[in-house]
Amino acid sequence: MPRLSISVNEYRNRVERLREELKKRELDAFLITNGVSIFYMSGFYHMVTERPAALLIPGDGDLSFMGPLLEADHLKHQTQLVKHIHTYLDYPGTTHPIDLFAKWLSDLGYAKSKIGTDNTSGASATMGYTGPPLTEKLPEAKLVKADDILWEMRLTKSPEELDLIRESAKWGNLAHQLLQEYTSPGRWDADVALEATMEATAIMKKTLGPQYTPTAGTRCCSAGFRGQVGSKSAMPHSIAIERPIKQGDVLVTGAGADVGGYNSELERTMIVGPPTDRQKQYFEVMMEAQDAAISALKPGASCADVDIAANKIIHKAGHKELVRHHTGHGIGLQGHEPPWLDQGNPVLLKPGMVVSIEPGIYRLGYAGFRHSDTLIVTADGNELVTYYPRDLESLTI
Amino acid sequence: MPRLSISVNEYRNRVERLREELKKRELDAFLITNGVSIFYMSGFYHMVTERPAALLIPGDGDLSFMGPLLEADHLKHQTQLVKHIHTYLDYPGTTHPIDLFAKWLSDLGYAKSKIGTDNTSGASATMGYTGPPLTEKLPEAKLVKADDILWEMRLTKSPEELDLIRESAKWGNLAHQLLQEYTSPGRWDADVALEATMEATAIMKKTLGPQYTPTAGTRCCSAGFRGQVGSKSAMPHSIAIERPIKQGDVLVTGAGADVGGYNSELERTMIVGPPTDRQKQYFEVMMEAQDAAISALKPGASCADVDIAANKIIHKAGHKELVRHHTGHGIGLQGHEPPWLDQGNPVLLKPGMVVSIEPGIYRLGYAGFRHSDTLIVTADGNELVTYYPRDLESLTI
Repeated sequence: MPRLSISVNEYRNRVERLREELKKRELDAFLITNGVSIFYMSGFYHMVTERPAALLIPGDGDLSFMGPLLEADHLKHQTQLVKHIHTYLDYPGTTHPIDLFAKWLSDLGYAKSKIGTDNTSGASATMGYTGPPLTEKLPEAKLVKADDILWEMRLTKSPEELDLIRESAKWGNLAHQLLQEYTSPGRWDADVALEATMEATAIMKKTLGPQYTPTAGTRCCSAGFRGQVGSKSAMPHSIAIERPIKQGDVLVTGAGADVGGYNSELERTMIVGPPTDRQKQYFEVMMEAQDAAISALKPGASCADVDIAANKIIHKAGHKELVRHHTGHGIGLQGHEPPWLDQGNPVLLKPGMVVSIEPGIYRLGYAGFRHSDTLIVTADGNELVTYYPRDLESLTI
Repeated sequence: MPRLSISVNEYRNRVERLREELKKRELDAFLITNGVSIFYMSGFYHMVTERPAALLIPGDGDLSFMGPLLEADHLKHQTQLVKHIHTYLDYPGTTHPIDLFAKWLSDLGYAKSKIGTDNTSGASATMGYTGPPLTEKLPEAKLVKADDILWEMRLTKSPEELDLIRESAKWGNLAHQLLQEYTSPGRWDADVALEATMEATAIMKKTLGPQYTPTAGTRCCSAGFRGQVGSKSAMPHSIAIERPIKQGDVLVTGAGADVGGYNSELERTMIVGPPTDRQKQYFEVMMEAQDAAISALKPGASCADVDIAANKIIHKAGHKELVRHHTGHGIGLQGHEPPWLDQGNPVLLKPGMVVSIEPGIYRLGYAGFRHSDTLIVTADGNELVTYYPRDLESLTI
């Protein structure tokens, strides 16, 4: 059976790694309020809303959760690692949750402790949540922002994480294949995207079986255009769509899949109908820039080196002013996460880092050109995780 | 033509309302970093990432934007209200964006000003962004957290906003109707959800025409189950799905649509096959609680009154321990926003507030029962915006 989630053992190892860091920094415990980080440390995923929730990882002893009653049953269903579950009925409640957070930490013996946290205010504070900072309610404790510990842990992926990302790439590939098959002049991009997404999701579920469940929502895998159709392909993250696909359009796609909370990123530039010479020229520069960045991706090189390698090609072709973003970003539990493949980022590449490589060139009013692939930095170079064809012939509708 | 977006005039009025409040508080300008709030004040919507972006609304004079180059073309495309656009290539960049933010504000003459903001750190800080707080880079300026101004403005909706929410409800209704039609034993909830979503989205786009575009992503409207199938209907926000729908299941659905960035919420409890007496009993208590809450929703009553009215019915039926959340929440640009219909919330209801009414009862291991409707508080009571049938017969598959 393919690996579809992180093992309990790996979660235990993560907790131990965090604890080693707590010892070094003389912190008594770590308080996590970010939903993704709670998932990373425990395997418990929830929809983050105005209702504050937090996971406490003590220096030793059992993990403890405090959050809305709504989440208590999920938590028990999803993880055995959290032994103590404390809840409040809802936000704002007759007693503000932050007061209950302070009582929870005091009852656990942390009223005068030094506690690391990702958020000294004690609550994620989305959707209009308001409340006093937790520090005000625990005046003798010292809350120290230390989420760099979590980011450092997440920066290089374990063999289990890499397996999930590789599995994700397979289903992104299927969704993209269907997207390409269903693309034709006269169709709306939203219709094509939903049709491909629906069919690929159904196949993915039937293939992987009932033990596979998407972490959030009902989209197991998906593919689409995000509005990057025709001249709007020149606006990355374009979002909106105003007319159907037509002959001669440049399309920039995107596909991915959720496996155990992990993602991959696959994007392609497609041309509807025979490409013009002008389209071919831009496409080739983009491909050459991506090739150069891929060649530069290896341990010991810096993140900046990869970005500079791609830019060198684009600048040489005379398209410096058509660059709208850097060459890539880390990917894992989130669609974007460190490390940033950016000319200003001196961080050195290490085996286990996972990144997108996606230099793009965008001629406003005409078209944009970008492929994105997901790659793992390996001991002696890199591994291309996404494997959808990149050549123009394969990508011509 | 139906209203599909907020008018330029209304955006101008919002800016003027904000400015009046700035004067009262003796603030020279207002700095917004939250993506939804930038949209609310200007009509410019973007995907929030690690790249910081901000809108400056001066006490008088033109609006100014600072953000990643990636967004500059979108901004010009989406709004005429922002006259000055400043950009940086990407994050982290050779110069950290926060230094450029400080320079931007200094160049505008605010180096020693008192500036209201939704975020004194100067950046939304998602996806692993790190950087020093803006206050450190503008030591002589005073940044004052004042996002309560924006929340107060958003708390009651204008006639234009109400029109968009009413239009949203229509398309949520269609998506839900198709969801119900396509639901049958043996089908996966994800397949049914995507099929209904795809078809309703295609119809919605064809009906409203090319001038309609969804604000984010490609889903114009959608319907689904969020994993609330069978015994998992007892876990609100359950997310994951592990088996197909079967005879005897209780299902809790959800549907909505994006019209000009505004949402509505429609949720129904459906039964697959003839309901049992036990199912009927829970369903009736839930309906009675929803009716009581709707009756209590009127200007002058408090948010707590509405929650208490629903709870009274549920407690009387002996199901106090089956309550997992309060009766409802505000809705508008976000799926959840103030006001909270919560027993601990003394806020008084006012005409123009828009809320969900959704008391639920959840018997773990058995099933959950919840309808959610969107309502507007009016001068003399309320208006039911969602109009999908609520009775058991209509909701039996």
